[in-house]
Order: sequence, then C-alpha cells, then structure tokens
Amino acid sequence: ALAAPAVAQTMPEIRWRCASSFPKSLDTIFGAAEIVTKRVASLTDDKFQIRVFAAGELVPGLQVLDAVQNETVECGHTVSYYYVGKDPTFAFDAAVPFGLTARQQNAWMYYGGGLELMREFFKGYNLVQFPCGNTGAQMGGWFRKEINSLDDLKGLKFRIGGFAGNVMSRLGVVPQQILGTDIYPALEKGTIDAAEWVGPYDDEKLGFYKVAKYYYYPGWWEGGPQLTFLVNIKQWDALPKFYKEVLTMACAEANVLTLAKYDAENPPALRRLVSQGAVLKAFPKDVLEACYKATFDVYAETAAKNAWFKKVFEPWLQFRKLEYEWFSIAEHTFDRFVLAQAAREG
Amino acid sequence: ALAAPAVAQTMPEIRWRCASSFPKSLDTIFGAAEIVTKRVASLTDDKFQIRVFAAGELVPGLQVLDAVQNETVECGHTVSYYYVGKDPTFAFDAAVPFGLTARQQNAWMYYGGGLELMREFFKGYNLVQFPCGNTGAQMGGWFRKEINSLDDLKGLKFRIGGFAGNVMSRLGVVPQQILGTDIYPALEKGTIDAAEWVGPYDDEKLGFYKVAKYYYYPGWWEGGPQLTFLVNIKQWDALPKFYKEVLTMACAEANVLTLAKYDAENPPALRRLVSQGAVLKAFPKDVLEACYKATFDVYAETAAKNAWFKKVFEPWLQFRKLEYEWFSIAEHTFDRFVLAQAAREG
Repeated sequence: ALAAPAVAQTMPEIRWRCASSFPKSLDTIFGAAEIVTKRVASLTDDKFQIRVFAAGELVPGLQVLDAVQNETVECGHTVSYYYVGKDPTFAFDAAVPFGLTARQQNAWMYYGGGLELMREFFKGYNLVQFPCGNTGAQMGGWFRKEINSLDDLKGLKFRIGGFAGNVMSRLGVVPQQILGTDIYPALEKGTIDAAEWVGPYDDEKLGFYKVAKYYYYPGWWEGGPQLTFLVNIKQWDALPKFYKEVLTMACAEANVLTLAKYDAENPPALRRLVSQGAVLKAFPKDVLEACYKATFDVYAETAAKNAWFKKVFEPWLQFRKLEYEWFSIAEHTFDRFVLAQAAREG
Repeated sequence: ALAAPAVAQTMPEIRWRCASSFPKSLDTIFGAAEIVTKRVASLTDDKFQIRVFAAGELVPGLQVLDAVQNETVECGHTVSYYYVGKDPTFAFDAAVPFGLTARQQNAWMYYGGGLELMREFFKGYNLVQFPCGNTGAQMGGWFRKEINSLDDLKGLKFRIGGFAGNVMSRLGVVPQQILGTDIYPALEKGTIDAAEWVGPYDDEKLGFYKVAKYYYYPGWWEGGPQLTFLVNIKQWDALPKFYKEVLTMACAEANVLTLAKYDAENPPALRRLVSQGAVLKAFPKDVLEACYKATFDVYAETAAKNAWFKKVFEPWLQFRKLEYEWFSIAEHTFDRFVLAQAAREG
C-alpha cells in the first residue's frame, strides 16, 4: 500500500507559455527549451505544462526578456546578450568577446560565483535565470569578400549584434542588427557584406554559403555563448518546491545535452558546407589583435561608467585568468597535439 | 483539490546501496554520486534512497563493476577503464589514449551513437550505465626525475592503469596498478618512480608534490575521462518509470556539474601546487609521438582479436576524426589565440 507522498499533495495544474528567441527550424537551439518542457511535463504527470512558442509567435525574438519581465509570458528561452542595449552586464550571462569557453562558462556559473552574481543582477528585472544550453565556440561568419587586413574592415556592413558590434565599430565596421531569418536576403542583395550566425549546423540550414562563400573563424566574440531559460520572479516564487527543483534540473540537463548536440552535429555539417563551396578562412592575426585591444578598451570604458558591469567584470576577469592558466596546461596541449597528428593523417 | 497523480501511485519505498570506486576525501569525483543520490531522494520525497559507500567500505574500489553485476550492491559509481582486464572495450566508456575530450565524449554518448552501442556491450554484464561526471583532460602525473627522452621511460616504474599501461609497456615502462590511497607511500619510498592520478585539485589532496616534484602534462591517455553510474539490469528493470526518469536526469545533471566543478577547482589548485614547489613540465614531442604510434599499434592488434572492441572502435574512430576536424577550426583557434594573449599579459 502506497501513501500519496508530499510530492503529490503539492502538484497543482500549472500552464505556462515559454517565448523562444529562435525559429523552430533550428532544432538545436530551439530544441533546448523543448528538452526542458518535456522533462517537466513528464516528471509532473503533465500537471506542470510549459508550451514553447517560436520567435515571433507571441513576441519578437529579441524581446523575450521584456515579455518575461512584464509577465506577458511566464518564461522564455533566449541569449542574454540580446539585451546589452538595456545594460551591457547582460552579456556575461551569455558571452563577451575573448571571454570564456563553454566549459569555463559552466565552471563560472555553477562553481565560480557567476550564477549567484548574475541572479542578483537579473533580480532587478524581476527575473530568475538558468543556464540552458551552449553552442560552443562559434564561427566568425560569412563574408562576400576576403578579409586580408584591418583595412578590409573599414566600411564593412556586418550583421553582428550587441557588444561585439560595439567593438567592431571602433575598427570601422558598420554593425547591422538583423534577425536570423532576414540575413539571407540581405546578404544576397548585397545590403550587407557579411553576417555571423552560429556555426556549421545552424548556418547550413539558413543557406548562407550560397551567397557569401568565405567562412571565417573563430567567432572571437562568442567563445562559448550560453543560452538562458528566464522565469518571471513572481511566477517562480509561486511554484511548489517540487516544480522548482524539476525545472532547475531540467535546465541543467538541457545545458549539457544542447552543447553535446552541437558538438555532434557541427562536424558533418562543416564537411557538407565545404563540399558545397564554402571556403574556410582564419581571421588574420593582426585583425584579431586589433579586435582584442579594442575589446579591452570597451571593457575599461564600460566598467568606468556602469557599476553593475564593473561588479561582474572584475571577478569575472580574475576567474578567466585562472581558467586560462589551467586550460593552457593539460587541456590545450592535449588538443594541440592530437589535432596536429590528425591533420597530418588527413 | 488535488488528486494524487499517477506519479504518487508508483512511488514504492526503495533502498539501494551505491558502491563508489573513490574515497570520500575527493569531493569532486566521490561527490558526483552524491549529486545523483540527493536529487533522487529529494524528487521522490525520500521514497527512493540510495546510500553511497566509499571505496573499500563494501567492496574494493576496483571491483565496483563486479559488485553491481553480481547484485552485491544495486548500483555503483566508477570509471569503466578499471575493467579493461575483463575486456578492453570498457575503456571507450571512460577514455582511451589520444581519444576524445570531455565535450567530444558527451557528443559521442548523447548524440553520436555511443550510449546505445555501449549499452549493448554493458548488457552482456547485466548492467545499464549512465555518463555521470568527467574530469576533463588530466595531468600526466608526478615524476621523481625528468623525462627528457624516450630512454628515460625505460624501466620506469609508473603507476598507470589499464589500456595506457599496456601502451607504455611497449616503450619500456613498467606499469604499476596501485590504489589511489597507496600511491603516496610507494612514491615516497621509491618503490615506484612516477604516478598519475587526476589533476591539480585531487592530486593536491593526496600530497604527491611532496615526494615527486616534476608534474608532467598532458595526460594523453585521458583527454576527457567519463565517470559512469552503473545499475544492475534486474534492479533497473524493476524500477517504476518515474524513478528511472529521475535517475537518468540526475546522472546528466551530475555529468555537467562534476566537470564544471573540476574546471573551477583545478585552476587555483594548480597555482597552489606551483607555489609549493611543483615543477610543470610538458612531455617531449618525440615521447608523445612514440606513445601515439604505440597506441595505434595496440588499437589495431586489439581490434584484430576482439570483435566487441572492433565494433566500437571503428565508428568511434570515424566520429573522432570528424570531431577533430571541427574542433581544429573554431574552438581550437579561439583557445590558441586567447591563451597566447593571456600568457603574454602574464
């Protein structure tokens, strides 16, 4: 004989709507929210159901944070750097130029004080946030012409968002804010000269290789961008403890699974893109060095005028320094050796 | 009014024992199993309780798999390469020399067919297994003398396990199988010349730097070793669906959290070790190249005589090739650039 456990006594019927910043066609990044909602439904006997809506269905993809903040929807799935216009501090919840890799971001969030610090910041927007996916280091984007020197950046109309756009404008780039689905026609018509999106698997679906063949790397502004599950704080506080715990866990699961899916899908997609004519190009060293310098200029200027940015940036920078020290030892020398051996084998 | 959901009607009281291969003092690697058991208890109102026992408390650390297979305990937490003496195929569930990094291992397991393939293999031992933690690329170990050439490997008594020990013996190393807790006295007395364990955070606790100052990298035999949660298949089959789902999720959560914890704890531990006299040394290139060649000789020989090994090795090798191609583009060039910049900044 089984007594109904306390769990069962606190399982009210709850229906939430989750606004995603992404289109359904991108099964990796859109799918991260679905991993969460399926688990939540399954573990609560469908008592707690969250329905995911694609970008534009309820709210525009770049306004998910506002919609959750205002309780237009109870929750959302997005990338926090979309909101650097409100405050550049949001970028630390996703990625900043020459920042942390996916693993380092997780280390910072879960065991480096990052989650607590960012929770305090998000609280000011009536939000509670959870790491919920990562793409890994992104590609630098699709260019109609080669970038051989810093001069080639001057006047370049480049679809690139937020913080990195700000950095690039110092090198003469004209940053363009364009939704993912509008990039292809803009590139095709030549309204823009270049566009960055994610990496091989997602980029292939959007077809950029047909209209801009040079595929540059690395995306130095996104070494390990985190996706974020946002919940309105009032809605969160009203959840039974069991639902809170299930949701927390489901986000952690989606976090590891989404990165694993990108890491499994990107390699064959890269091969397909190259076979269809994409030309892989590394950014020249002097371009990267100028971008690095401009980035740290922007960091210093932003920290000088934004107290929240400074409060996060300073411990984050110290954490990054230690991470880089350690990763340059075992992890990087392992990678460098095996990748060189494999390249030699062809 | 809340009706007791189906979840509650399938929540019998279950008590399991989990044998860990690790000592309690290693809060990272031992702690992975505790992340699982705490979540499972919490989400089932303590109806499903799993108690974790340290290595040696119920069964010796290197016999966890046998104990779960024989139902001496219902489940265990271990590293599958401990069992290569039974079959070298076990190593793919953890790490093989010059193999996958932590992220690539997750990609293979969750979306590259690895989990299904390894489940089929483990079924032959009456086991169901779950990825449950990863240490990241390990260090190459503590050496009493410098390794300047291949000659220095001849006759070297090195505490190193399983598959890698087999590879190293071809280069004249005399591999030693010693439990973690017995390494320190063996190194101190000079019974052995060198010993590998994990990385800075765990190694510091065991105090090796006091008796062998050269700390070599990378641990090429463990680029991203996975920890594994093992469940006896009969016990697994008897679990209610809800418990199965909670356990599966908890292992995924422990998988991401344990790697994040290592990645957060290793960097400050590395600094402390260096300040206490540890001397960081990279293995010479010709040593790594000879090890690489010996590794692939062992792979070929093993695949020729072991059908299971061949069945896993061939798709695994193809997966690895694609992973390396992609990781050499965005991820590795990002790492190389930022690590070089940071090293210059000091």
